[in-house]
Amino acid sequence: MSEKKARIAIVGTGAIGGYYGAMLARSGQDVHFLLRSDYDAVLREGLRVNFTKGDDFTLHPVQAYRDPTEMGEMDMVFIALKTTANNMLPALLKPLVGKDTWLITMQNGMGNADLLAREFGAERVLAAICFISLNRIAPGHIRNLYNGYLSVAEFQSPPSPRTAQLKAIFDQAGIQCDELQSLDETLWRKLCWNVPFNGLAIAAGGIATDRIVSSPPLCTLARSLMDELADAAAHFGHHIPETFLERQFTVTRKMGDYKPSSLIDFLQNRPVELEAIWGEPLRRGQAAGLPMARLEMLYHLLRHSLEYSQ
Amino acid sequence: MSEKKARIAIVGTGAIGGYYGAMLARSGQDVHFLLRSDYDAVLREGLRVNFTKGDDFTLHPVQAYRDPTEMGEMDMVFIALKTTANNMLPALLKPLVGKDTWLITMQNGMGNADLLAREFGAERVLAAICFISLNRIAPGHIRNLYNGYLSVAEFQSPPSPRTAQLKAIFDQAGIQCDELQSLDETLWRKLCWNVPFNGLAIAAGGIATDRIVSSPPLCTLARSLMDELADAAAHFGHHIPETFLERQFTVTRKMGDYKPSSLIDFLQNRPVELEAIWGEPLRRGQAAGLPMARLEMLYHLLRHSLEYSQ
Repeated sequence: MSEKKARIAIVGTGAIGGYYGAMLARSGQDVHFLLRSDYDAVLREGLRVNFTKGDDFTLHPVQAYRDPTEMGEMDMVFIALKTTANNMLPALLKPLVGKDTWLITMQNGMGNADLLAREFGAERVLAAICFISLNRIAPGHIRNLYNGYLSVAEFQSPPSPRTAQLKAIFDQAGIQCDELQSLDETLWRKLCWNVPFNGLAIAAGGIATDRIVSSPPLCTLARSLMDELADAAAHFGHHIPETFLERQFTVTRKMGDYKPSSLIDFLQNRPVELEAIWGEPLRRGQAAGLPMARLEMLYHLLRHSLEYSQ
Repeated sequence: MSEKKARIAIVGTGAIGGYYGAMLARSGQDVHFLLRSDYDAVLREGLRVNFTKGDDFTLHPVQAYRDPTEMGEMDMVFIALKTTANNMLPALLKPLVGKDTWLITMQNGMGNADLLAREFGAERVLAAICFISLNRIAPGHIRNLYNGYLSVAEFQSPPSPRTAQLKAIFDQAGIQCDELQSLDETLWRKLCWNVPFNGLAIAAGGIATDRIVSSPPLCTLARSLMDELADAAAHFGHHIPETFLERQFTVTRKMGDYKPSSLIDFLQNRPVELEAIWGEPLRRGQAAGLPMARLEMLYHLLRHSLEYSQ
């Protein structure tokens, strides 16, 4: 793969897939995008990326596809599909997977790498977990509200030549990237943001994150949810330091009136990633004998909100 | 007190004070009502009580007062003031309290008998805790939606001749009444309804109890809150049986689209009894080293909802 340019696919060109795919393509990578609803807009106007501090760009033309059978085998497939569409993944990915294809999940929550491993073999699965705030503000148009970082990890083993290669590709594209010892730890860390902030945005009445961080009771609540997740992570052998938890508030204050993806889904009556973000960690914790009382409560409040809004 | 008819005061003539006071007066007791906002309406039209199954009645004329100094000393004072106005209680009660006056709190939540004991001496404090669904549907007009029962208890001791006398008075008025071993236990029991149902009615988006009992996730949530309260009660030496918890769902299903008092307060932008119903049991549990994670979470969600709605 190092001699010739890797063929890269983005499966699911929403905010995350569109942003990272466009960044990689801008850096000279050979990126092929699988789209559905935004296909026409992207073909016509390209992928537009805005930043809060300038450096906006448009990727045009875009190697865009509606049908994965037209894309051919890939070296790397980045999966940024919403987890609520995971049932479609096996069929979407099959045409892209060759003997040595890497499958790299960028999806929210837990259980996604496990699904890929079950369907296509654990040896080809990696993850690239992003800590970033992106909104898709129009078809093919993505706004970067807070520029965080990306963590790459093997599915079930420490960093490898593959994670080093991924890091090099992202570095070259101007994306801050680190290789992590453990995907599992990375997922628990990311949940320390998604569980409270995506969750309370819905459960506290449909509010953006600035209303959460400016409410003392919601900050108390967010922090106690984080503590519960950190305790669960510790139970599974991962230490999430206090400073990491505190930093979630600091970075969130910089995001302004950010609407987490789950809130946007909720407000637009689209499926919310309930099971990946809240259900799966709840089940993992409870299966290990942890009460997970706060997460359980939030999960059921969200389930109610979602059913009630239908 | 047994030779001549007891002089009875109702302090706080809302749904609870108005209902029980009217029932006692109808049975021949000498009941004096302290009112504020409903004074004119009650003087003009009396206290009207509706039941779902008939037997409606109107108490008219009513011995109504706006100023406690005009009421004189009482034998029994039933306190049904909203706990959010507890700071006014010492001044309101002082003119009514003689050497042998009983002070009987009917208020929601925890900490009310303690306040009376601090201000007027523990020896005169009792409680009459009602398990009933009442709504004040207009000034001086009360609707009984679910006819439960009343539990009378001494502040800090077992049943006594006083509780027997209270029970006799209520029995005679057609109100099902029992004497309980422990006020503390009674309060934990009542919280097993108020904490989840008053709380979720607000926290789950402003819904009546029929929406709670018809939502599987909210039933799960309500039950897990009850379990946490029952665990706390057990820690303080009170056994609340499983059957009692299950019965809360059965009786609530009979209430129809009942709006708990806290929800009505919330919807009408009036103070909600946050500290009595959620704050005080949370503090008592946590002071005893119990995590109370679910109650804590609900408390903070409610605090946010109340601040956010202002």
